[in-house]
Amino acid sequence: MKRIEPKLTVVGAGPGDPELITIKAARLLMEADIVLYDALVNTELLDYVPSSVPTIFVGKRAKAHAYTQQQINDLIIDSAFSYGHVVRLKGGDPFVFGRGWEEIEHARSFNIDAGYVPGISSSIGVAGLQQIPVTHRGTSESFWVITGTTSSGKISKDVQAAAQTNATVVILMGLHKLQEIVEIFSHAGKSSLPVSVVQNGSLTNEKYVLGNIDNIEKRVVAAGIGAPAIIVIGEVVALHPEYNKTLAEKIKIDNSFYSLN
Amino acid sequence: MKRIEPKLTVVGAGPGDPELITIKAARLLMEADIVLYDALVNTELLDYVPSSVPTIFVGKRAKAHAYTQQQINDLIIDSAFSYGHVVRLKGGDPFVFGRGWEEIEHARSFNIDAGYVPGISSSIGVAGLQQIPVTHRGTSESFWVITGTTSSGKISKDVQAAAQTNATVVILMGLHKLQEIVEIFSHAGKSSLPVSVVQNGSLTNEKYVLGNIDNIEKRVVAAGIGAPAIIVIGEVVALHPEYNKTLAEKIKIDNSFYSLN
Repeated sequence: MKRIEPKLTVVGAGPGDPELITIKAARLLMEADIVLYDALVNTELLDYVPSSVPTIFVGKRAKAHAYTQQQINDLIIDSAFSYGHVVRLKGGDPFVFGRGWEEIEHARSFNIDAGYVPGISSSIGVAGLQQIPVTHRGTSESFWVITGTTSSGKISKDVQAAAQTNATVVILMGLHKLQEIVEIFSHAGKSSLPVSVVQNGSLTNEKYVLGNIDNIEKRVVAAGIGAPAIIVIGEVVALHPEYNKTLAEKIKIDNSFYSLN
Repeated sequence: MKRIEPKLTVVGAGPGDPELITIKAARLLMEADIVLYDALVNTELLDYVPSSVPTIFVGKRAKAHAYTQQQINDLIIDSAFSYGHVVRLKGGDPFVFGRGWEEIEHARSFNIDAGYVPGISSSIGVAGLQQIPVTHRGTSESFWVITGTTSSGKISKDVQAAAQTNATVVILMGLHKLQEIVEIFSHAGKSSLPVSVVQNGSLTNEKYVLGNIDNIEKRVVAAGIGAPAIIVIGEVVALHPEYNKTLAEKIKIDNSFYSLN
């Protein structure tokens, strides 16, 4: 019988496209003793896991029981002592609003060896795949990634600070706060600043809209964009090859254009 | 004879560890007709390229001829028309200060089909592998990534703005500006803010130091840290398991501690 060596690796699955996982992450899935995965993880990635190895879904899904963070933490500990190497697979990168560090700290408090494998963060990768480079010489010298879902439930004060700067601003998990975000940027005098919202980035069912602070809410509604989505705000959005077309009250939905009026 | 179809894909190689490339990027290296790669790319990745396919180093190296961006742009066009699919392999992510968008725009101006494959950015991945999560619930709701090497040669104004905020600040290619960065954060009243500098992140020759705004310059010099390095500034740095040890005027070099006094 194999001796159980409790271990945790918090692993980034990338933004959705199953080819956008790292080779290291794929190898760890092949070597795992048990896999715990989140809702935003593409389940095709579980094909790397040997069929004898258990895989447990711990994310939130409509109508399904959602594990609390405490329950996930407990499950990690139980799994490590019962099975050995726990691969904790998370969408994007585990340290970009993924609560990965909380899980590592919890495991270490039980003397469980715990490590991390980075993943492609949607903040950079989904924007880029949608032809919006987060930085571009002469246009943006920085990008600022902010969560739209804080522990308090209120919008992060960092959004207000960001509206005062020239940084490309990327807001994750913030679609439900779009109205507040628009107000903040409007008050900062940035009504015409280009904005894009991308849903299901890197997947075949990706949807996106282009616009500016003034019209982005209307366009998101008209296009039927929903979560999970990223919001990209800044002059780099205007580099998108179709940005100029959108200036004339047009909306991009999937791969076809239509006029609002 | 195969018909030549000119094409460019700008591909992220990740931070250095050859396993931290995506499966898609590795596949494109196998399928490329020619590969142009930068100095920060781990050359082990070229093992994916079939031996019949040319690989050209276009980066800067001590004493070696360095291509200008214009020469690289020209080489991409020539290569695409002569060979077909050009894989342009860049360290980290091509759109994080990688000038990837410039190359895509240039190729498109010649009607060459051009695309992008994201890579693990050192801004997130190197920090995380060095046990510094760029975000952590209750500590940081955002991270701001800034280049230390602007087109003007001056320090980005975004560094000054960032020093006024609670964002985790990550500065890439900024080691030569460390003195200015320290002054900016000191003037913002943040002398005791935790800082880490990591050289050769994710590689076996990785070096790092932990400290604060007040003492980081001294520690970088004592540890002999040089470029390429990332600078991480913010309360999340104090989450590093060895951070508290460093408070007592100690410096971490490789895997051993020594006292300054």
